[in-house]
Amino acid sequence: MSTAIQDSIIADIKLAPEGQLKIDWVAQHMPLLNEIKADFERTQPFKGKRVIICLHLEAKTAYLALAVQAGGAEVAVCASNVLSTQDDVVAALVKNGVTAYAIHGCSEAEYHQHINKALDFDPDLIIDDGGDLVSTLHSDPKRADQLKKIIGGCEETTTGILRLKSLDAEGKLSFPMIAVNDAFCKYLFDNRYGTGQSVWDGIMRTTNLVVSGKTAVVVGYGWCGKGVAMRAKGLGARVIVTEIDPIKAVEAIMDGHEVMPIAEAAKHGDFFVTVTGNKDVIGKEALANIKDGAILSNAGHFDVEISKPALHELSNGNVRTVRKNIEEFTYTDGRRVFLLGDGRLVNLAAGDGHPAEVMDMTFALQALGLRHVMEQGASLENHVYSVPAEIDSYVANLRLKTWNVGIDKLSEEQERYLNAWAE
Amino acid sequence: MSTAIQDSIIADIKLAPEGQLKIDWVAQHMPLLNEIKADFERTQPFKGKRVIICLHLEAKTAYLALAVQAGGAEVAVCASNVLSTQDDVVAALVKNGVTAYAIHGCSEAEYHQHINKALDFDPDLIIDDGGDLVSTLHSDPKRADQLKKIIGGCEETTTGILRLKSLDAEGKLSFPMIAVNDAFCKYLFDNRYGTGQSVWDGIMRTTNLVVSGKTAVVVGYGWCGKGVAMRAKGLGARVIVTEIDPIKAVEAIMDGHEVMPIAEAAKHGDFFVTVTGNKDVIGKEALANIKDGAILSNAGHFDVEISKPALHELSNGNVRTVRKNIEEFTYTDGRRVFLLGDGRLVNLAAGDGHPAEVMDMTFALQALGLRHVMEQGASLENHVYSVPAEIDSYVANLRLKTWNVGIDKLSEEQERYLNAWAE
Amino acid sequence: MSTAIQDSIIADIKLAPEGQLKIDWVAQHMPLLNEIKADFERTQPFKGKRVIICLHLEAKTAYLALAVQAGGAEVAVCASNVLSTQDDVVAALVKNGVTAYAIHGCSEAEYHQHINKALDFDPDLIIDDGGDLVSTLHSDPKRADQLKKIIGGCEETTTGILRLKSLDAEGKLSFPMIAVNDAFCKYLFDNRYGTGQSVWDGIMRTTNLVVSGKTAVVVGYGWCGKGVAMRAKGLGARVIVTEIDPIKAVEAIMDGHEVMPIAEAAKHGDFFVTVTGNKDVIGKEALANIKDGAILSNAGHFDVEISKPALHELSNGNVRTVRKNIEEFTYTDGRRVFLLGDGRLVNLAAGDGHPAEVMDMTFALQALGLRHVMEQGASLENHVYSVPAEIDSYVANLRLKTWNVGIDKLSEEQERYLNAWAE
Amino acid sequence: MSTAIQDSIIADIKLAPEGQLKIDWVAQHMPLLNEIKADFERTQPFKGKRVIICLHLEAKTAYLALAVQAGGAEVAVCASNVLSTQDDVVAALVKNGVTAYAIHGCSEAEYHQHINKALDFDPDLIIDDGGDLVSTLHSDPKRADQLKKIIGGCEETTTGILRLKSLDAEGKLSFPMIAVNDAFCKYLFDNRYGTGQSVWDGIMRTTNLVVSGKTAVVVGYGWCGKGVAMRAKGLGARVIVTEIDPIKAVEAIMDGHEVMPIAEAAKHGDFFVTVTGNKDVIGKEALANIKDGAILSNAGHFDVEISKPALHELSNGNVRTVRKNIEEFTYTDGRRVFLLGDGRLVNLAAGDGHPAEVMDMTFALQALGLRHVMEQGASLENHVYSVPAEIDSYVANLRLKTWNVGIDKLSEEQERYLNAWAE
Repeated sequence: MSTAIQDSIIADIKLAPEGQLKIDWVAQHMPLLNEIKADFERTQPFKGKRVIICLHLEAKTAYLALAVQAGGAEVAVCASNVLSTQDDVVAALVKNGVTAYAIHGCSEAEYHQHINKALDFDPDLIIDDGGDLVSTLHSDPKRADQLKKIIGGCEETTTGILRLKSLDAEGKLSFPMIAVNDAFCKYLFDNRYGTGQSVWDGIMRTTNLVVSGKTAVVVGYGWCGKGVAMRAKGLGARVIVTEIDPIKAVEAIMDGHEVMPIAEAAKHGDFFVTVTGNKDVIGKEALANIKDGAILSNAGHFDVEISKPALHELSNGNVRTVRKNIEEFTYTDGRRVFLLGDGRLVNLAAGDGHPAEVMDMTFALQALGLRHVMEQGASLENHVYSVPAEIDSYVANLRLKTWNVGIDKLSEEQERYLNAWAE
Repeated sequence: MSTAIQDSIIADIKLAPEGQLKIDWVAQHMPLLNEIKADFERTQPFKGKRVIICLHLEAKTAYLALAVQAGGAEVAVCASNVLSTQDDVVAALVKNGVTAYAIHGCSEAEYHQHINKALDFDPDLIIDDGGDLVSTLHSDPKRADQLKKIIGGCEETTTGILRLKSLDAEGKLSFPMIAVNDAFCKYLFDNRYGTGQSVWDGIMRTTNLVVSGKTAVVVGYGWCGKGVAMRAKGLGARVIVTEIDPIKAVEAIMDGHEVMPIAEAAKHGDFFVTVTGNKDVIGKEALANIKDGAILSNAGHFDVEISKPALHELSNGNVRTVRKNIEEFTYTDGRRVFLLGDGRLVNLAAGDGHPAEVMDMTFALQALGLRHVMEQGASLENHVYSVPAEIDSYVANLRLKTWNVGIDKLSEEQERYLNAWAE
Repeated sequence: MSTAIQDSIIADIKLAPEGQLKIDWVAQHMPLLNEIKADFERTQPFKGKRVIICLHLEAKTAYLALAVQAGGAEVAVCASNVLSTQDDVVAALVKNGVTAYAIHGCSEAEYHQHINKALDFDPDLIIDDGGDLVSTLHSDPKRADQLKKIIGGCEETTTGILRLKSLDAEGKLSFPMIAVNDAFCKYLFDNRYGTGQSVWDGIMRTTNLVVSGKTAVVVGYGWCGKGVAMRAKGLGARVIVTEIDPIKAVEAIMDGHEVMPIAEAAKHGDFFVTVTGNKDVIGKEALANIKDGAILSNAGHFDVEISKPALHELSNGNVRTVRKNIEEFTYTDGRRVFLLGDGRLVNLAAGDGHPAEVMDMTFALQALGLRHVMEQGASLENHVYSVPAEIDSYVANLRLKTWNVGIDKLSEEQERYLNAWAE
Repeated sequence: MSTAIQDSIIADIKLAPEGQLKIDWVAQHMPLLNEIKADFERTQPFKGKRVIICLHLEAKTAYLALAVQAGGAEVAVCASNVLSTQDDVVAALVKNGVTAYAIHGCSEAEYHQHINKALDFDPDLIIDDGGDLVSTLHSDPKRADQLKKIIGGCEETTTGILRLKSLDAEGKLSFPMIAVNDAFCKYLFDNRYGTGQSVWDGIMRTTNLVVSGKTAVVVGYGWCGKGVAMRAKGLGARVIVTEIDPIKAVEAIMDGHEVMPIAEAAKHGDFFVTVTGNKDVIGKEALANIKDGAILSNAGHFDVEISKPALHELSNGNVRTVRKNIEEFTYTDGRRVFLLGDGRLVNLAAGDGHPAEVMDMTFALQALGLRHVMEQGASLENHVYSVPAEIDSYVANLRLKTWNVGIDKLSEEQERYLNAWAE
């Protein structure tokens, strides 16, 4: 433990007690991870291995790190976003013997330095979120040897998987990675109900403004966007969706939303939420059209979805912080536009991230996915893999069991019926 | 035209004017098929070919038949369900030169005879719904030669595709079939919004009972079940879902529904809707437990989802029709249970089927899928194929265009960003 | 009974068996009225009295008439709308000894003749719906003597109560009337959940068009309008509300709907539903602006809410019936507008009216209200009265009891707390 | 201004800049109060008068105080709840010349001392919230003279109005009070959309737990309860309602919720919210039954709705704070129950209260109601009065104007039609 304290780069170890309370609280609401952690304690799947976890460092993530540690691993963590780190939680992790490199609100340079410090931990296994860990590993010629040692890992996000697939397509991926985001038990729940709730939690607590009667513009109608739109409606808003995919656009219309190009939607929205994984989805043209008083927020992985350069240009530097996590940009024509959480993930930068129970499913997949890589790593090629269907089902069944909810089973005759073509 | 009249087996040609009005009405609300039909008239993709269409013979289907006919085909139709045929619509089709073998409420024997008459029409291409056409073709040794002639076809339903895949898995499928149901523009819309609305339309018009404040049990939480549950909630009901798949069960819980085994749900439901594609999903045990006054309906393809034999056994033959499309089973212990539309597709047997605009998307896929088979048939193997993605996108774009709804396009820089792994 | 058959003016007594089935069906779903009817049979509150009931003559109303008859009354019925009468139900009533004057689709002249025939029945008590019975009674000098004999009655609708209050304000009301519509157990349920469901049931079964993805314009945001808007949203539509009351308009916005003047809303709506009790709420200007293909329907008491004269003028008589209960008006500029059910109550003219369970609460109030007038008539002045609060509570409690739902009771200490001002 | 600083009892004047930012933020989102404040500045309705405002002292309330001050009044404020005071906002008020007696988290004794200090300010007009100001004034014999001087005031809450009416019924109310809570523009919006949103905002930010898939028990189905239940459903929860009023219970059922006695609901709920205005609505019996892990919160005025004595008894003093605003009670049988915000208004004690735009309507009523009392005070008797309908309409119209939303007007012919009884 003392090693962790010595090696770590964190804000203040004295914050640990408050962080521990936060971890204890979420641990009570993560029954799946509790069960998996207990199993790891018995079976020690990661015994003697070193694991780096690069995630949003708040309480739920911390508990995942402790579960992996319980499985016999030496664990180091670093942040996947400069604003999502909670310093008290990180301090508590260090107290528990996890090495940490993360400080809330650090500079981009420090952020990358922390990732490199983590990589120097020399991992056997990794958990990545957004792909910065993997990208740094593969970009830096000095790390070529390290690449060979790594058994594999798991990736959390849509964005990260897109990057992994690009790397894979170029034939450069050097170890197997599990695309945790693409598991049913991840994207159907985390992306939809998790993002849906936590985005509006973040917006409401930050602005103290009413959602009902307002117009919410949701940029992107993937699973995250569907969740954000569903909750906007559930809170009484009218919803406008913008899309690039015609099928998702038709779906949005049939779900009772309006669809239009972002440059037009910009004129109507009170709240804007970007959830695309792409850059400049609220770009200069849209920002030029935007309604006075608009509240802008992003829930995509990187802070590039809303063009901050365009905001600065349109306001000619007339920017000030008007409330915690709210910057006001006053345009040269007098319009004011408000950006939440510096355009970073609003649910993490201006909130506590997804609810504990939702992350419980995601992190159950991460923990079991990592064990799968550990056990099967030798037989896997250097590609992006899906989470095995049996892990997905196992997590869903465990979720039902912890709720004490029963479902039906096919009888033999029903199975036969389903497999027969001649009636 | 006179040939069609001579050859057809229908209820009454004099009903044609009323049927024509119905077709005209839906045609006004099927802008996609209008555009495709106009294109078919110009390009004559099916010139000189014979096509059989086995579908629920109501107005929207009739308009699909006319669109295929406009493309140069000789067309014959037969029913995919004995209760879904609308005699006036069929008469109008015959007046338009389509040969028809279909009478509402005919016997099972006549139903199969009609399918055989249709097959005697000697088709080059087929459109099937539920798989009875394909199954009959492949089961009957006499039709072995016919199989060779057939270029291919399209299948409409989940049930039919399951049967095709069984046939394919056994290596017996003799021509390529397009799985229209599995296109995004089919199952995301037809199964969800189409079934969702038409099931409750059918139940409400048949029973004149209130939905709000009631408990609706939805058996199966696939796309159809999701739609039925969503609309039940939208009409004010509480919803209980039963499932065999743990992931769908968790999804149902997170959507705010309850989940339990059907044998337990049976005790709580006021309305029951089965949408599984399987048999006996409300079987004897559930029926034995069922709440007095329960209203049972099915929206799956075959009338086997609710066990009618078990109902007859439990009521010892004490059955009577108490209102159009409602049979009352009085159990030996005095409980009364009501079965709508003889356990056949409640939205078709006790309604007019899916709304026109929803079928417009589905039938656009059918029409374009059939053209695809026609054009590419030679290069396709004898397997089940997905609808090509470009047809799916084309249909969605056409839908947006007819709504006059615009969406965004990726800029080159955005495309580049999405394909880059090193940030 | 034979007298009833001789005196009645109905379509066809031979339709009685089908009508009886309909009455039996709803009776099964009206547990409150069942209990009240049983009580009336024992206590004979109307023994020797003559009662006229002027309501929409379908199965639920018929069962109310039978409950009043069971209480010892001689009962006659007449229609409150020429299109809402169901001839088979009326025939069954006559078979049960109720005198009836009502034929579906009769002329306006016949309609008024039927009201006069009913008044000639010389009632002691009346139940009115919309106020035509009371208005005729008070307008016709020949009926001055009759007025004196009448003990009092009940009125069902917002429209009727408005008319009664005008009459009362002019000092002309000649007997006490109970405003049943204004009871909580009426307007909170019948107007909201009843109208909400039955209007969309009527529209869906009549048009076979999809609601989701469409824009529904709801004209009037009273309790009926709130119900219609809520269900439109529940079926997947976007909703525009038009109002004259600023408070209701703000409420509609906060409920997530849009609000605009009808002349503007006319350009955006796919479906229109009027529920105001006023005339020309979709008047000439709105109709001139209306979107091509719009579907117009009314759920207010009289067929004056949508201006039929303006429709005829704009289409220069170019009108035809394109489907049962759908008239197409083709404007001189080519736009087509569709009017459902001749602009009469779409839920009754093109449906079966409100669900049975909803009418059960309303008719429980009617039955108990009528008994209240019978018992207290002597002590009441000639004014419009509210339903006594204890009847309202009794009905709600009976509803809970028949659902087997329990609620809490205030403890003595809680009562004391609520009545104390000094903490 | 210096007087205000000298006389005030507050936490720390140096917090003023942060408080001023908060006030500026909400002021931007309170267009009605902006317009009224501008009018007050011109017309000086309160010139030379002294006004005490006893409310939840956060930013929106502060802006109301500044609007009244702008109207020419000397203003003093005190808190209506010991946990809802925001010390920075109070400091900013003092900087603006308002005298303040309020410190966050002060003792009950200090709380009452602050009320008495405020009363010593010797007001001409008062704004009260919950009735403590009025109650203290009427209970204390020393303040008998003061009572005579007071022109009148306004009361904000259901609870306060109940207390005023008790006082009035005993003939003891010594000046006219306006029941602001009972205005349409208050209870339809503040109680429903305000409470609905802010309660769940408070719960989500405090617990970081998911709402969807959970069971929320809402105790009381008045306007606040309806809002809390509606938003619970909109966030994906199932809802159980408990009630003492049968009509509201039926309404809850028809809205798709379940209803049962609290002692039974206790076993099923994950989240509990009390909104009744009564005491012990989750009392000892319910608490004894409660589900392990339940989260309890109150949104009623006083912290008596959930029985804290019973909680302490059941846990035998085994209580600890596990996260900010969350106390854990561990029962002697091992169950853990969590109480948010000490059982005080969860939206204020663990949040920022209602959204700004909602309070804008309420405080527009307060400001205009107070002016009404000022202008009409002489002609009013010492009773509880409704907000005049013209003020209610004015506020709604102003709300529509600031949204730029238009509504319709009755034509003369329509007015005539509505007033005619003879069709």
